[in-house]
Amino acid sequence: MSLDNAAMTLFGDSISGNCLKVKYVADHLGLPYEWVETSVLNGETQAPEFLAMNPAGQVPVVRFADNRVLAQSNAIMLHLARGTSLIPSDPWDRAQMFQWLFWEQYSHEPAIAVLRFQKFYLKKADSEIDPALPARCGKVLALMNDHLAGRSFFVGGSLSLADIALAAYTRFAHQAGLDLTDYPHIRAWIGRVERGLNLDPVT
Amino acid sequence: MSLDNAAMTLFGDSISGNCLKVKYVADHLGLPYEWVETSVLNGETQAPEFLAMNPAGQVPVVRFADNRVLAQSNAIMLHLARGTSLIPSDPWDRAQMFQWLFWEQYSHEPAIAVLRFQKFYLKKADSEIDPALPARCGKVLALMNDHLAGRSFFVGGSLSLADIALAAYTRFAHQAGLDLTDYPHIRAWIGRVERGLNLDPVT
Repeated sequence: MSLDNAAMTLFGDSISGNCLKVKYVADHLGLPYEWVETSVLNGETQAPEFLAMNPAGQVPVVRFADNRVLAQSNAIMLHLARGTSLIPSDPWDRAQMFQWLFWEQYSHEPAIAVLRFQKFYLKKADSEIDPALPARCGKVLALMNDHLAGRSFFVGGSLSLADIALAAYTRFAHQAGLDLTDYPHIRAWIGRVERGLNLDPVT
Repeated sequence: MSLDNAAMTLFGDSISGNCLKVKYVADHLGLPYEWVETSVLNGETQAPEFLAMNPAGQVPVVRFADNRVLAQSNAIMLHLARGTSLIPSDPWDRAQMFQWLFWEQYSHEPAIAVLRFQKFYLKKADSEIDPALPARCGKVLALMNDHLAGRSFFVGGSLSLADIALAAYTRFAHQAGLDLTDYPHIRAWIGRVERGLNLDPVT
């Protein structure tokens, strides 16, 4: 069974930071892929042929040439980036990278990404949004800003998967109605991550 | 900086599957530790001295003898178990283990653990519980049961961190009011995980 990534298909929704993470890593590492746009809002992740590939009904999914399939944005990033500098070689740095990757999926994404989705894509009025959600986003941003004080990147001194995972939605925070003015360390870090990944600023 | 785990302190709440995961791994690997009971319900994870250690205000946390601190249950497991058979050496098996670890934190824990907490610890009546929550638990259990059909463990043919992460709350599913009668593959797998970890059955 080959682990060659030469011919892989990324099923992703371009409005999803989780999907963009995988695209950022593939582009950064120069891994060739075909992108298949798969809309969550249009129900395409719940179609029978998609569920046959990923029973969890979630994007992103990567399918390799030999039909092996892998889901979960952070797991796909870890697989594509194995052996590269995006995964720290030092065991303690790597442990901290994992800490941030799990925090991102458990605490960051369910706050920032969910608020952005409700406001920017579902066009919900503030009165329709659980008031606990913006409060959780504020805590998430404060924690990130405090951690980044005096640091260039989340772990060690260079770009890692922790930064890519956390920047994927944070760089769209304004679409969640979140103002980053009071979080200068986050703003500077987003710039560093965007330059590291060769991304145009979104703001 | 030593990576010796000989003297570590685990801050955990014994009613939390996330915390028990770390205990299971440490016990299985014979790693000595001091357990410091830290109650979420009593607000101990929001106390200033705890937040100074983990600004996310979550257990589990491990503190090593040199005061380095690591949070996030799955990140701690990965760090403690590095180089052992609990982390598959095959890259594709390892990728699938990561897939399940992230799915556990994103989709499984926010369903099963949250429903258990509301019913068993907060003693909420069914009428006070979001009806979408038990429905999500049903989907989670069906997905696990389907995956386990014809398999002994989640990844490869042996016990890995994926099993420990997923079993930590699934073995307490009855405390969430979830009946595992219709999920025979899950019940058999829980038995295998409990025997592998030398745990007494909880039911």
